[in-house]
Amino acid sequence: MKLPDAAGLPGVRALVTLALAEDVGRGDVTTQALIPPRARARAVIVARRGCVVSGAAVAALVFRQVEPRLRVRVHCRDGRPVGRGQPILSIAGPARGILTAERTALNFLQRMTGIATLTRRFVERVKGHKAVILDTRKTTPGLRALEKYAVLCGGGRNHRRGLDDMVLIKDNHRRFWGDRGAMRLDAAVTEARRRFPGLAIEVEVETERQLRSALKGAPEWVLLDNMPVRRMRRCVRLCAGRARVEASGGISLRNVRRIAATGVDAISLGCLTHSAPAADLSLEIGGIDP
Amino acid sequence: MKLPDAAGLPGVRALVTLALAEDVGRGDVTTQALIPPRARARAVIVARRGCVVSGAAVAALVFRQVEPRLRVRVHCRDGRPVGRGQPILSIAGPARGILTAERTALNFLQRMTGIATLTRRFVERVKGHKAVILDTRKTTPGLRALEKYAVLCGGGRNHRRGLDDMVLIKDNHRRFWGDRGAMRLDAAVTEARRRFPGLAIEVEVETERQLRSALKGAPEWVLLDNMPVRRMRRCVRLCAGRARVEASGGISLRNVRRIAATGVDAISLGCLTHSAPAADLSLEIGGIDP
Amino acid sequence: MKLPDAAGLPGVRALVTLALAEDVGRGDVTTQALIPPRARARAVIVARRGCVVSGAAVAALVFRQVEPRLRVRVHCRDGRPVGRGQPILSIAGPARGILTAERTALNFLQRMTGIATLTRRFVERVKGHKAVILDTRKTTPGLRALEKYAVLCGGGRNHRRGLDDMVLIKDNHRRFWGDRGAMRLDAAVTEARRRFPGLAIEVEVETERQLRSALKGAPEWVLLDNMPVRRMRRCVRLCAGRARVEASGGISLRNVRRIAATGVDAISLGCLTHSAPAADLSLEIGGIDP
Amino acid sequence: MKLPDAAGLPGVRALVTLALAEDVGRGDVTTQALIPPRARARAVIVARRGCVVSGAAVAALVFRQVEPRLRVRVHCRDGRPVGRGQPILSIAGPARGILTAERTALNFLQRMTGIATLTRRFVERVKGHKAVILDTRKTTPGLRALEKYAVLCGGGRNHRRGLDDMVLIKDNHRRFWGDRGAMRLDAAVTEARRRFPGLAIEVEVETERQLRSALKGAPEWVLLDNMPVRRMRRCVRLCAGRARVEASGGISLRNVRRIAATGVDAISLGCLTHSAPAADLSLEIGGIDP
Amino acid sequence: MKLPDAAGLPGVRALVTLALAEDVGRGDVTTQALIPPRARARAVIVARRGCVVSGAAVAALVFRQVEPRLRVRVHCRDGRPVGRGQPILSIAGPARGILTAERTALNFLQRMTGIATLTRRFVERVKGHKAVILDTRKTTPGLRALEKYAVLCGGGRNHRRGLDDMVLIKDNHRRFWGDRGAMRLDAAVTEARRRFPGLAIEVEVETERQLRSALKGAPEWVLLDNMPVRRMRRCVRLCAGRARVEASGGISLRNVRRIAATGVDAISLGCLTHSAPAADLSLEIGGIDP
Amino acid sequence: MKLPDAAGLPGVRALVTLALAEDVGRGDVTTQALIPPRARARAVIVARRGCVVSGAAVAALVFRQVEPRLRVRVHCRDGRPVGRGQPILSIAGPARGILTAERTALNFLQRMTGIATLTRRFVERVKGHKAVILDTRKTTPGLRALEKYAVLCGGGRNHRRGLDDMVLIKDNHRRFWGDRGAMRLDAAVTEARRRFPGLAIEVEVETERQLRSALKGAPEWVLLDNMPVRRMRRCVRLCAGRARVEASGGISLRNVRRIAATGVDAISLGCLTHSAPAADLSLEIGGIDP
Repeated sequence: MKLPDAAGLPGVRALVTLALAEDVGRGDVTTQALIPPRARARAVIVARRGCVVSGAAVAALVFRQVEPRLRVRVHCRDGRPVGRGQPILSIAGPARGILTAERTALNFLQRMTGIATLTRRFVERVKGHKAVILDTRKTTPGLRALEKYAVLCGGGRNHRRGLDDMVLIKDNHRRFWGDRGAMRLDAAVTEARRRFPGLAIEVEVETERQLRSALKGAPEWVLLDNMPVRRMRRCVRLCAGRARVEASGGISLRNVRRIAATGVDAISLGCLTHSAPAADLSLEIGGIDP
Repeated sequence: MKLPDAAGLPGVRALVTLALAEDVGRGDVTTQALIPPRARARAVIVARRGCVVSGAAVAALVFRQVEPRLRVRVHCRDGRPVGRGQPILSIAGPARGILTAERTALNFLQRMTGIATLTRRFVERVKGHKAVILDTRKTTPGLRALEKYAVLCGGGRNHRRGLDDMVLIKDNHRRFWGDRGAMRLDAAVTEARRRFPGLAIEVEVETERQLRSALKGAPEWVLLDNMPVRRMRRCVRLCAGRARVEASGGISLRNVRRIAATGVDAISLGCLTHSAPAADLSLEIGGIDP
Repeated sequence: MKLPDAAGLPGVRALVTLALAEDVGRGDVTTQALIPPRARARAVIVARRGCVVSGAAVAALVFRQVEPRLRVRVHCRDGRPVGRGQPILSIAGPARGILTAERTALNFLQRMTGIATLTRRFVERVKGHKAVILDTRKTTPGLRALEKYAVLCGGGRNHRRGLDDMVLIKDNHRRFWGDRGAMRLDAAVTEARRRFPGLAIEVEVETERQLRSALKGAPEWVLLDNMPVRRMRRCVRLCAGRARVEASGGISLRNVRRIAATGVDAISLGCLTHSAPAADLSLEIGGIDP
Repeated sequence: MKLPDAAGLPGVRALVTLALAEDVGRGDVTTQALIPPRARARAVIVARRGCVVSGAAVAALVFRQVEPRLRVRVHCRDGRPVGRGQPILSIAGPARGILTAERTALNFLQRMTGIATLTRRFVERVKGHKAVILDTRKTTPGLRALEKYAVLCGGGRNHRRGLDDMVLIKDNHRRFWGDRGAMRLDAAVTEARRRFPGLAIEVEVETERQLRSALKGAPEWVLLDNMPVRRMRRCVRLCAGRARVEASGGISLRNVRRIAATGVDAISLGCLTHSAPAADLSLEIGGIDP
Repeated sequence: MKLPDAAGLPGVRALVTLALAEDVGRGDVTTQALIPPRARARAVIVARRGCVVSGAAVAALVFRQVEPRLRVRVHCRDGRPVGRGQPILSIAGPARGILTAERTALNFLQRMTGIATLTRRFVERVKGHKAVILDTRKTTPGLRALEKYAVLCGGGRNHRRGLDDMVLIKDNHRRFWGDRGAMRLDAAVTEARRRFPGLAIEVEVETERQLRSALKGAPEWVLLDNMPVRRMRRCVRLCAGRARVEASGGISLRNVRRIAATGVDAISLGCLTHSAPAADLSLEIGGIDP
Repeated sequence: MKLPDAAGLPGVRALVTLALAEDVGRGDVTTQALIPPRARARAVIVARRGCVVSGAAVAALVFRQVEPRLRVRVHCRDGRPVGRGQPILSIAGPARGILTAERTALNFLQRMTGIATLTRRFVERVKGHKAVILDTRKTTPGLRALEKYAVLCGGGRNHRRGLDDMVLIKDNHRRFWGDRGAMRLDAAVTEARRRFPGLAIEVEVETERQLRSALKGAPEWVLLDNMPVRRMRRCVRLCAGRARVEASGGISLRNVRRIAATGVDAISLGCLTHSAPAADLSLEIGGIDP
């Protein structure tokens, strides 16, 4: 899949500016006091453990925003695996800029690479089944576009990007709409279609009876939330292609393959973005010209 | 320790606005289509596993920013432990507002609570020693103030908040300054003091010889990075109170107590903020008045 | 249809601030020089010709942003028709605020009401047919949310709100994708579905052959652009409900009913937003207390 | 008259950014899914009906803001008439950029060209008379600078640009100042002059008596609002060059020449900006290199 | 003269936010460490030397922006003289807020009061003559609106507020326009009038010949820059009321009265805003309730 | 001392944008009306009295922000003295840009140069003593970074840059902390150290008894505020190097040398930033090519 340009995603430049302001504040006092303004250096960011790279262009943007004269070279493109000790990015130019940008660049790169790496593990676990791995809206406030991009780097796909590009009728909505639950799911789909004729509609169901009701409304997707595997399999059969099927809730590396085997079209995972540990990367300085 | 007001920290309101814009986009289409504008409800956020709460006021801010008429009540204050199934926050008022704000509020609360919970585990592990647990600058871009606050909630303390409020002379700086390493650490401290007379100065050292050199400059802090425990102990003795001592690098729940036992004043940990898993919380709707 | 709250739409407060800054600049010199700061007045905005109201809450927001002490009362709610000479909004309070806000408030209200009024004429023209009237992306830069809202007030529906909430495969895209035109429309739909599993897909077609190809991909919508009425009718039959059908291009009040009669599900019109004349409204001052 | 640089007007870059954000949102999903990132194309914007061009540089800015590598060439400069089928702008470079920017660029260009075209019709109608055609403050919120620029392109002149660069004493102000109307117009002019010694002053009058009173204050301008032609002629004579004379209210292409013949110095028209229909332009893609 | 509301001037709230961000940064560490969150206090700002107050509402805004629960009372209104030791403002409420806001509030109040005080000295020096004291555009970047307001408080008047609300043809412009100087000043006025019919025009002249030329264009103002008093008097006579006359350049408290005696209408002074010393004020804490 | 890059200080670009917006507003009407768009010129900024330059790069930024094609050359670097009539900066390129930017560029340069010039006088007055000259937080709202930079240009040093980078315990804090004054100063230092382990701490003292109490807490600095010279000398001796000593309050060019002679480490002066008169500079146009 062709990846979009991460540094060009809406809001990313502003986020980099914000992150630098937050870290640099009134100025990097240590480099101002101790590093000559004309000193030059080379640096390389290397992986200390194997991972799937994501965010190289964002890290490059951080360096260039601090110091436009820095030359940044990407050694390993986003979405590619990199082994322990291998270089991801190298930077050359004014030393003050490298030192001031280092931490912020790594903070972006380590988080995004962490997400891509975890996603890849799930993707590989379900290989051979048609199920795609989806992210959720459980992302870090302010970083959604980058985190969803990192999921793409890991081989996953993006679920809805916000509350505005898909109708997703959940248990909580259903209670307001018709108080006797599944009886009215088709009417809910019809009403949502009337109001937003251009948007796809998904319905969360917990039982086969709810599923039957929902399918009458002809939603594009149904969501099987926290369902036992056996019931899930029956629901997939019941759908028979009339709607695509997503599974979510309580899914981990241990059980994801079994769930994929039920024939669902997609599996969504909050942990990809809310609990992926940071990748272990470090920046090493060399080639100093003080 | 008296905690500051999290929702009043610099930049937090703007971050909440950004996070909501990112999630809500052109509008929450599902509630617009299906929830009557006048429907009211009550909701409660509960812990699904024990944790140390952090961010209740931020979550409350999210709800009120979406819908000023929502009434939010905090059941468990930041910094307090909460058991499985116990309520943290309850919300009452217009149902649309609750549903639209839910995910963003949880995204803040789960991350901050996750950090506080992990921090508390480290703090408890070193009990009885004088060492305090410190955070680092390895925070999520844009969330530093909140993540450092979450560390306070967990019982940790804050290391420097950015590149501007403390001079920290690291290995990378030393190379530029005097190319033969430890020989000149005292001069570096003096130079930094001259330029920024009002800031505290810390020096990273790897050997006892470097430490002796640094101490001649009378820095406020020395940092022992990735040092074997035995050497660490010797360095603490060598300092003899002339500078406070911080340990960092390769520290985990397994070895933190042994390191505290060396007599260091502080132990800093990147994992508190870059790899804490999200706390397991959920919002439950009830008391509906459609 | 329940209308959203216009003044609460994303970006509207900022737009009002911008519009006021643009008009007021360094201050309303005439009122500063001539109107006593404590003078009070009442004012009413009346229709000079019949129209369908839209934007009353936005106009109210303008007045209150200039002067929070102004009390604004809405006499005719958005979406309702109002006859010549009838009041829409009345304002009471500090006179300086009323005079300073007047023009900006009217500029919003006249444009939105103009759009709602024109939309209503189209909606009434197609009554009895199932076709809904849709807007387009041909809106005034910066005012899209308000103009699409005004279309709802007039009884129309909203087509996609931007380039991001629906895939719309047009003639221009087709050329890049497969150079022999209709042959590959189904493949295009499949490819788009793979990349954005959660979004609805629409395909523009010009011939029945293209339509057949497109339908194989199972898009949610097809768009018949600038098609003769007879061919349009055949296409509607060919679809047979497998996709919803939209007509666009060269449609005016004169021919819209004939097009609705073909059985299309929707008719989209750029003129609703790019060429609706401003409604004829005026603000009249009274009840002065200098 | 030398026109200013439209793309350099205060606020225009921010407005273009806003308009693009509004349209592109989370990304142009159709081009992302279907257009190869390296595909290149040429496109041309042509007039489908004769018009007076305005906004070419703004449209160019839109394209370049979306994709800096696009080369844009202006074939017909602002203020020039262009015939049916003639090219206004051509664009070459990365195809994704052209397709993503198309609608926003056209939205600016069609509106501005529509205004310039209508203005030119009025300007030509009054040829031979000294009266200049002026715009008003009845502009689209947020677009004032561009719309006033479009009026210049059509051959008109700009009336005050906001509430801050001229004192304009209207009927509504008069009521507060002196409750018996025209008696005190000269005092109002004097008072305004005292407060804002550097600004020109205009007074709206409805009767000859009011005019006489106003002229005693020596305003720079008088405004004859909604006055019968005959009375207008008498007022012009009465002024005898002591103040410049503006006419406004109820003026259309049908009667504008008769009004110009009264000898007024200027005629102001709200319809130029609030009701000009969009110009009929289209973008045609060609020279594709996928 | 009725003063506008200083805290409501365009941009003032944003400037206060900026000034507080600049001073408070990541937080007022001293109060956070040492002042209990619930401690309350009273404080009063007093003059240590006599001055003319300006900016009380801005200082109040600073306090309330830091802590909305602070109650602020103004004892001496803007434009009023206050003697040594007299109170200007008193504040009561949460102690942390008072201490955090103190310096920023004083920074505004001392500067503005300094300007008002200096202005008043000039105004009193010219009493009995018709000349008004004007400010210039030589203001502190970002503070123009407040500094021009402070001049009003001192009894002065405002010259043009920016490059956009008056045409001022200076020596530097003349060189470009017609290279033989005074010959073409009337043409310059005519040309400027044609382009900006609604703006007042002022012409800087150095000789009587230039003045005669300029007057033919009928400018609203002429500016006599750096002219010997005798020539100034001749120029005033030459004008004979056809244009208002402003004097500037090399004017101080020593010679301002002599210049006023020439009969000029206005005297403009850069020093009012660029070199007024800060007023000597201090904040005193009392009534503590820890 | 190596100076930082003034134009690159945090917030400076935004401040320049703000200052230009404030001055230019809707456009420089005089140049638009009278200067041909293609006219070119050269200009030079010269000192009319001797001064120490500060802000040349900021002035250059102003010119380039108005017109990127202007070439700016700095003749006298920041921190250097310049004699009467000597050039500081020269500018060449489009004439409109020079004329529009002139006043804003001078407003920055005159203020900053004024501060550097006054600072230099103090620095020279204390030569031979170890005391450095420090600024304070008594800066112009919004200009702190630039004014503190100007102090560096004059040879001074910077005290804390805001409320967040140093703990400074003043008389006002003491009252809240322990109501019997000096008794508890050491406890205050300890408490502050516990909360902000990475920040330097300073304590204001008025008596030797307070000083002794404070020194027990081992603060980095003590501040002798408004103290008679004799007592100051005793306090310096009492400190004996255990803390650095700062003097402030009531210090002028007349007495500063006597205070330096007491042996204090630093002398801080509010007047450097709040009351330095603007430097006397002017821009001269030449080399016109209309």
